[in-house]
Amino acid sequence: MSHQLHLNAFLMGVGHHEAAWRHPRTEARNVLRVGHFQELARIAERGKLDSVFFADGLAVGPRIERNTQAVFEPITLLSAMAVVTERVGLIATASTGYNEPYNLARKFASLDQISGGRAGWNIVTSGTADEAANFGYDQVPDHDGRYERAAEFVDAATALWDSWEDDAVVLDAETGVFADPSKVHTIDHHGDRFQVRGPLNVPRSAQGRPLLVQAGSSTSGKDFAGRYAEAVFTAQRSIPEGREFYREVKALAAGHGRDPGDVLILPGIVPFIAETEEAAKRLEQEFTDLISPEYSLRQLSQMLGLDLTDHPLDAPLPPLPPIEQIRGNQSRYQLVKELAARESLTVRSLIAALGGGRGHRTIAGTPEQIADDLQAWFEAGAADGFNVMPPYLPGGLIDFVDQVVPILQARGLFRTEYTERTLRGHYGLGRHTGRFAQVAAAAGA
Amino acid sequence: MSHQLHLNAFLMGVGHHEAAWRHPRTEARNVLRVGHFQELARIAERGKLDSVFFADGLAVGPRIERNTQAVFEPITLLSAMAVVTERVGLIATASTGYNEPYNLARKFASLDQISGGRAGWNIVTSGTADEAANFGYDQVPDHDGRYERAAEFVDAATALWDSWEDDAVVLDAETGVFADPSKVHTIDHHGDRFQVRGPLNVPRSAQGRPLLVQAGSSTSGKDFAGRYAEAVFTAQRSIPEGREFYREVKALAAGHGRDPGDVLILPGIVPFIAETEEAAKRLEQEFTDLISPEYSLRQLSQMLGLDLTDHPLDAPLPPLPPIEQIRGNQSRYQLVKELAARESLTVRSLIAALGGGRGHRTIAGTPEQIADDLQAWFEAGAADGFNVMPPYLPGGLIDFVDQVVPILQARGLFRTEYTERTLRGHYGLGRHTGRFAQVAAAAGA
Repeated sequence: MSHQLHLNAFLMGVGHHEAAWRHPRTEARNVLRVGHFQELARIAERGKLDSVFFADGLAVGPRIERNTQAVFEPITLLSAMAVVTERVGLIATASTGYNEPYNLARKFASLDQISGGRAGWNIVTSGTADEAANFGYDQVPDHDGRYERAAEFVDAATALWDSWEDDAVVLDAETGVFADPSKVHTIDHHGDRFQVRGPLNVPRSAQGRPLLVQAGSSTSGKDFAGRYAEAVFTAQRSIPEGREFYREVKALAAGHGRDPGDVLILPGIVPFIAETEEAAKRLEQEFTDLISPEYSLRQLSQMLGLDLTDHPLDAPLPPLPPIEQIRGNQSRYQLVKELAARESLTVRSLIAALGGGRGHRTIAGTPEQIADDLQAWFEAGAADGFNVMPPYLPGGLIDFVDQVVPILQARGLFRTEYTERTLRGHYGLGRHTGRFAQVAAAAGA
Repeated sequence: MSHQLHLNAFLMGVGHHEAAWRHPRTEARNVLRVGHFQELARIAERGKLDSVFFADGLAVGPRIERNTQAVFEPITLLSAMAVVTERVGLIATASTGYNEPYNLARKFASLDQISGGRAGWNIVTSGTADEAANFGYDQVPDHDGRYERAAEFVDAATALWDSWEDDAVVLDAETGVFADPSKVHTIDHHGDRFQVRGPLNVPRSAQGRPLLVQAGSSTSGKDFAGRYAEAVFTAQRSIPEGREFYREVKALAAGHGRDPGDVLILPGIVPFIAETEEAAKRLEQEFTDLISPEYSLRQLSQMLGLDLTDHPLDAPLPPLPPIEQIRGNQSRYQLVKELAARESLTVRSLIAALGGGRGHRTIAGTPEQIADDLQAWFEAGAADGFNVMPPYLPGGLIDFVDQVVPILQARGLFRTEYTERTLRGHYGLGRHTGRFAQVAAAAGA
């Protein structure tokens, strides 16, 4: 089998586009229907996609009017989606900032059991003031401190996932033994922020343990990805930038003693698909025209940590502070700043550019053109695959699955059938070997 | 419609009996299968039961060999059960000791959305040393302190559930408004243990907010139930004791300014059902004979906080310390102590008595006898209904639903069809009115 690319579907309400739910191609009430999300999972599975994914935040945010995400919590929602699918991977975002390692490791392990080994965790550190205020903090904990906590959190969580050996569950009715206690281990984690004895109260899953995903592109974020992530969601706007990011994260992984092939780089794309390029661009424009600048200005203000609500729409951005002064999401800040500077955008144009993909790359074209674009990035070494962010749902996902995926398959770039049953399997990572099995193997060698 | 009783099914792995999974009537591997639990939910719904329920703990516990519960986390599991049922209520146990109010309120609110208003929360304070060690505590936080934390936790969580008014979700594609920000409120909770600004990022559900359940029977536990609980799971071994507990909790509720009818008392029962009383008792004995005393001694030691593993099986219990010295689960301690004292049990007999129901009342008899027993308790004012703990699953639940429920229905004691769609509705509580709607109503009056 030739080298193939990987595809994740980023599911955001009725679409990734800011104004998706105002467009006639969507049904706004779907944001309240669990059946809508179950159907999206089935569509992704029909397309043999590696996984589906939900973003998350721990606050309603400054734009209640537009926060159509404020309905379901991702892990509970993915559990409901797991039981109507058999193969597609299920990735939830969850915060290391405002959880306990035992609780969160357990939720993911439980989802991993429910789904037969298809769970993944997109690790975020939670960088907004609104989130901090829901957990007793006057302000956002500082950026480096958040990453230090995240590292200790992941160390404890992965140790918990490893605390049961693969063959610990005995289920011997004759002798009356459910699990062999000699194969279930305390972890005795003693760190600066957490003390966790273990073991977890969930056995290992069909994939060993959940997949680790990460999306931060700040300096700390990239280093964290190199150390822990098995898949990286990233916003890259050109092949040269994508290649640079790709090389950098793979090098960081190698620097942490890992095989660079064990961390997959998946840039985001927002595809507008139509029979002709003109029709696709018209479709994109329809969505852009539905953006309300006043709401978007508030979103942009939050992204930049700068009040722009009285700033004239047709002027360029005011000068922005250096990234070191940003406590919140540094990668998003940097992206917006670079985009505005490079393309000399007015605030209005910046809002339109961000509205489609929230900073990710929009491609409007025919299925062939989109497949060409993905192939070019993949073959240039700028991507191991893509985080596909349909601008409207379910239509945008259906079109991608029914029109773009078959072209990638015909070119030998994407699987035509699942060959694996687990999320780690789809990403070519194989079953995870727990630390106790590693110790046993080393002792036997 | 005459006054009717309520029925909850306590689902524990392949049965509530200690040795259930060793008996030929069960399939031990079912403890690992989400499909098993989905089937149990369907059976409960076929029987028109009010709800199903999972216990929970945040540690694997001292008896890994026997802890068949250590597979799924209840909320994720109930989410997978919600989507294969339409009516039955879904109650999960969760700890106020080792969670944050925002996170837990959100998980339940999300389950409530996924299930269309069928979620309930059994509030526990987590009283074991094994749990404490997974969250950075050297020992179990003291009993009163746990209840103080629980009270503040529930205050914050219920405020979060009320933070959206009923008509806050607008979903107006024309104007581009998802929610009306004037109807989504911060809660600004400032307490000794928690600071939570809110609002929650989940709207109100079909039942307003999740049902609150409680199961502690210590002095603090009963007061807590009187203050907050809408349903109480309790272990009561005789009608006089049941009546006393019933009167006490209802009076406590009245003392907190509540309608005593808004807190339902549901004692636990473990039914062994067969065509004759003799056959039912033989069936019970088969299960008792499968108990391994050495494992049960460890469980008993944990319940009492006293190492009994070297104590002779055929001697009575050693003298037990006064309840005030118990940091852990005081209600379970008191129950075991009283049971041992009243019936002058040897340790072996105590283990057998506890093995069936872990302290709850076992009834072995014909379907008629079991229905008679439940009716007697109900009509004596000792119960508003029952927490049914099938000793083996699914068989014990199937027999209860197919053989006992029809008798209760024929006597007019139990619904023959669901008349409501929500858990609160089943329990006769009506939709919960949020505090902002209450304020508005008061202002309008």
